[in-house]
Formats: sequence, structure tokens, C-alpha cells
Amino acid sequence: MKLRNPDAIARMRADFARQGAMASMGITVGDVAPGRVTLDMPFHPDFTQHHGFMHAGAITTAMDSACGFAAFTLMDADAEVLTVEFKANFMAPARGRQFRIEGEVIKSGRTLTFTQGRAIACDGESETVVATLTATMMAVRHQA
Amino acid sequence: MKLRNPDAIARMRADFARQGAMASMGITVGDVAPGRVTLDMPFHPDFTQHHGFMHAGAITTAMDSACGFAAFTLMDADAEVLTVEFKANFMAPARGRQFRIEGEVIKSGRTLTFTQGRAIACDGESETVVATLTATMMAVRHQA
Amino acid sequence: MKLRNPDAIARMRADFARQGAMASMGITVGDVAPGRVTLDMPFHPDFTQHHGFMHAGAITTAMDSACGFAAFTLMDADAEVLTVEFKANFMAPARGRQFRIEGEVIKSGRTLTFTQGRAIACDGESETVVATLTATMMAVRHQA
Amino acid sequence: MKLRNPDAIARMRADFARQGAMASMGITVGDVAPGRVTLDMPFHPDFTQHHGFMHAGAITTAMDSACGFAAFTLMDADAEVLTVEFKANFMAPARGRQFRIEGEVIKSGRTLTFTQGRAIACDGESETVVATLTATMMAVRHQA
Repeated sequence: MKLRNPDAIARMRADFARQGAMASMGITVGDVAPGRVTLDMPFHPDFTQHHGFMHAGAITTAMDSACGFAAFTLMDADAEVLTVEFKANFMAPARGRQFRIEGEVIKSGRTLTFTQGRAIACDGESETVVATLTATMMAVRHQA
Repeated sequence: MKLRNPDAIARMRADFARQGAMASMGITVGDVAPGRVTLDMPFHPDFTQHHGFMHAGAITTAMDSACGFAAFTLMDADAEVLTVEFKANFMAPARGRQFRIEGEVIKSGRTLTFTQGRAIACDGESETVVATLTATMMAVRHQA
Repeated sequence: MKLRNPDAIARMRADFARQGAMASMGITVGDVAPGRVTLDMPFHPDFTQHHGFMHAGAITTAMDSACGFAAFTLMDADAEVLTVEFKANFMAPARGRQFRIEGEVIKSGRTLTFTQGRAIACDGESETVVATLTATMMAVRHQA
Repeated sequence: MKLRNPDAIARMRADFARQGAMASMGITVGDVAPGRVTLDMPFHPDFTQHHGFMHAGAITTAMDSACGFAAFTLMDADAEVLTVEFKANFMAPARGRQFRIEGEVIKSGRTLTFTQGRAIACDGESETVVATLTATMMAVRHQA
């Protein structure tokens, strides 16, 4: 996929650094390419549900950010990204010490971008997909 | 709606108290009735996105908990509740000092429960629906 | 809700009449108000699944049209309506001789409109909600 | 993926043949493998929306069947398949003379099966993904 704005990835990293939620949850940026963002999230007892696994909402927060930032890498310099909607499926309990969160663009338009993401629990050698997301992102432009 | 288990609401409050995510986010239980749970969530700078509003994922975490606990109030004594999937729509930025999060059961079955929720920003007198959720919850029972 | 275009409901009825799918399925327009459309759908053996009930896709086709037309009633005269995405939950088999399909606008914006719908099986006196939908609709405008 | 029931694919073809909706829409079975079903759908003027493209609901009907039958191939001999919920995204107008509809299982459990599907418009040499689906399917068993 092609960048519309050569600074898009640098801008994306700056916006990521401004998300209070990412810092609180200990989430960091992994691989980034045009239309594709990977985040790394550690297990964190502050974001668990009542069985001690990561809360479905915490996993979703990370998947939403990965997808939103993936969409943002393909937007032009005037655009901000907003989440319109998303749907998540939870295939397995979010058990694990480390999670890899992947977001990628399926189709990038001027106004709407369609993305998909997934959360993978990484425990030593084994990897398990615990959740998937489809999300619609919107480019919002402020008139001069 | 009718309780299958007279202790369900007490059990629900105990499970809520064990969710690390609820305590970290400052979320508390408001009104509870069979099939219906309201949560109160303050604005919190640790759970913001890059424009300083609450992260879509934080709003979703609260809506998922409200819906899951609403479903749980109608389950029998052997059941645990798991989120199968949810879909959220974001109608307005999650701007506000306080949010009321509502979850309610649409249809309760032995295995699956259909729920819906919404998040309302409360700022003085004005109230704005910022997001809605539909979620499918599953009763999981452990064999003896 | 307020019409932006005084001819919107007449335009909506004209577009409905052009949908081949509505005629084939025997769907007709019931009550219409700004931001709200009801359709009537009979049971039809041509649109069943393998147990002889209406196919989930047929129910969804009707709910999508009800929601799309509800959104369209609030759009300005230059806009066409497109479905961006929807999510349906199926609570009960679509058993019945007649179905009432309701679509309504939750929030209407210049570009995006958020809607919800439901399908109700009507059999004599009894009514059963068999499915619900949340759908995002987009106003598309053609440049001169 | 592995069959739990050696007759599952034959049973799936028999159930497909009983779906009135598939015959009316001219949909036929293409490639089938355990956990994977492809359907072929022609353009059909009886299932269009008001711009003359295939109705989003018609595309969804086909994607739902592809996903449901993909799930069914992995179920045991006592199970029937029901759609619990699905979400569809529409990336492009469903313009084309022929559509290939793909459904595949992401995770197959005893009660729930997670699937994904997509609809591809085929026009001569060119192929365009017009829609994607994620669907949750349920195995229903009748007690003796």
C-alpha cells in the first residue's frame, strides 16, 4: 500500500505517544509499514476480568489502536482518524504473558477505511489467536 | 425479567469486585436489577486517546462489563459468563467528566444471552449518547 | 427528527419501488416518518433456509432496507444512501406468516447515519422479535 | 481441518439443496473442503437495490450460507447449524456478472464456530472484494 503523506508514519508514532491509554497499559509499537501496525502488549493485572485473564475490553482497546493507526498511515496530511465502529470476536480466553496485536487496512478510501485486526497470545513457543476485530475508520478534516 | 438464582446479584457484585480493570478505571456499580446493570465511569487521563477524550476501547470495556454482568444476573448458579462477541458504534467523541454505562438483556437463553448497552456522557445537565454496543454472552458450566 | 429535504419521503418511496429485491420478496412499505420506516414482509418459500424458516439473509435484506430508507428520509436532496456495514443478531428462528421490519435513525450526520432495526414475527396475536440490526449508512454526493 | 463426521460434506450438500433461497437466487456450490465452502452466485435482477447492483442483503445471504455450511462440515452427526450473529462490511458496490462467495472456519468448538467470509465480484479477468463477513455459528443438538 502507498503513503499519501510521506510523514504519515512519523505522525502516527507521535499520536501513539499521546494516547494515555497506551502508556497506562504498557503497550508499545512493534513493526509498522504502510497500512499495517503491530503493537506489543504485556499481561497487566490492572486490566483483567474476574478470572484473572485480560479483559475483553483491554484486548479490544489494543486492537482498535492497531487498526486506527494502520488506517492513519495511509491518510493524507490534513486528516485525523476516528473509529466509526468495530466488531470483535473472542475465540479463547486472553491468557498469556505477552500479546501481539496486529492491525491492517483492507481498503483505504478518502473518507472511510476498512481494517481488520487480531490479538495473539504469545507464551514461550506457542501462539494462540484470542480475538479478531473488523473496524471502520473515518478520516476527519478540519476546514480552514 | 426473572432471576434463575436468588444469589445472582450478590454473585455479580462479587465478580465485579474481582475485575482489576474496573478498579483501575474507577468504574463503580450503579443501579442493578434482573437483566439490567448500570455502571458509573469518571473521565480518567490514563484511558484517553490522542485528542484527550476517553479511548473507544475504554468506553467499550465499560459497556462490555455492563452487558456481561446484566447477562450474569439471569444465569443459574453453575454458570460463568464469557463474552462471545460484541459490536460497538461510536456516535460522538467521548468527551465529558462522567459517563453512565447501561447494559441490558434482550433475550436470555440457557447457553447464549443477547444484550445491548450504551455509554452516555454526562456533563452538568446535558447528556449525550456517545456509543452503543450489542454483545452476545455465553454461559459456561464446569462439569463435576 | 427533521427533514432536510421536503421531498425526502416521496424520493424514498420512489427508490423503494426500484429495488428489485423488495418486489421479488413481496415486501411493502408500512408506516413512514422522518427517520423511521416500517416494512411488511410475508413468509415466502423462495427465501427459506433448510428447515423451512425464512433465511437469516432474507430477514437481513429487509432490515437493511428499512434502516437504509430510514436514514435516507433525513438526507439532503443531493445525497444517495449506501450501506457501510451492519451487524445482525438472530434471537429466534424466523418462523411466522408475516414479519414486521422496523428501521430507525439513532444519529444522523452529514456523512454518516447510525441506525437500528429489528424483525418481528407476527402470528395472529403473538409477536416475537427474531432479529436485530445495527447499521451504518453513508450519504454519497455526486460532484457537478 | 478435520471432519468429526465422515458424512458431513454429503449432509451439507443435501441441506444446501433444501434451501429455497439458494435455488431462487441461482446460487450453486463450488469448491468444498473441511471447514471451507465456496459458492457461485450470478447477477440476478430480482435481487438488486435501486441502483441496479446486487442488494447488500443478497450478498449477505450468500456469505451467511457459505459460512454456515463451512461450519457445518466440521460438526458432528447430531448437530444442526444456526446463525447466532454476523457482521458485514461493504467495501464496493456489488457490480458484476458473477460473484464468488467464500466461507471458512476460523475456530471450531463444540457449541460455537467462528467463521469469516467474503464476496468477490468477477468480471472477466478482474476481481474485486465487495464485502466481508464475520459470523458466529451454533451447533444445536436435539435430545433423544
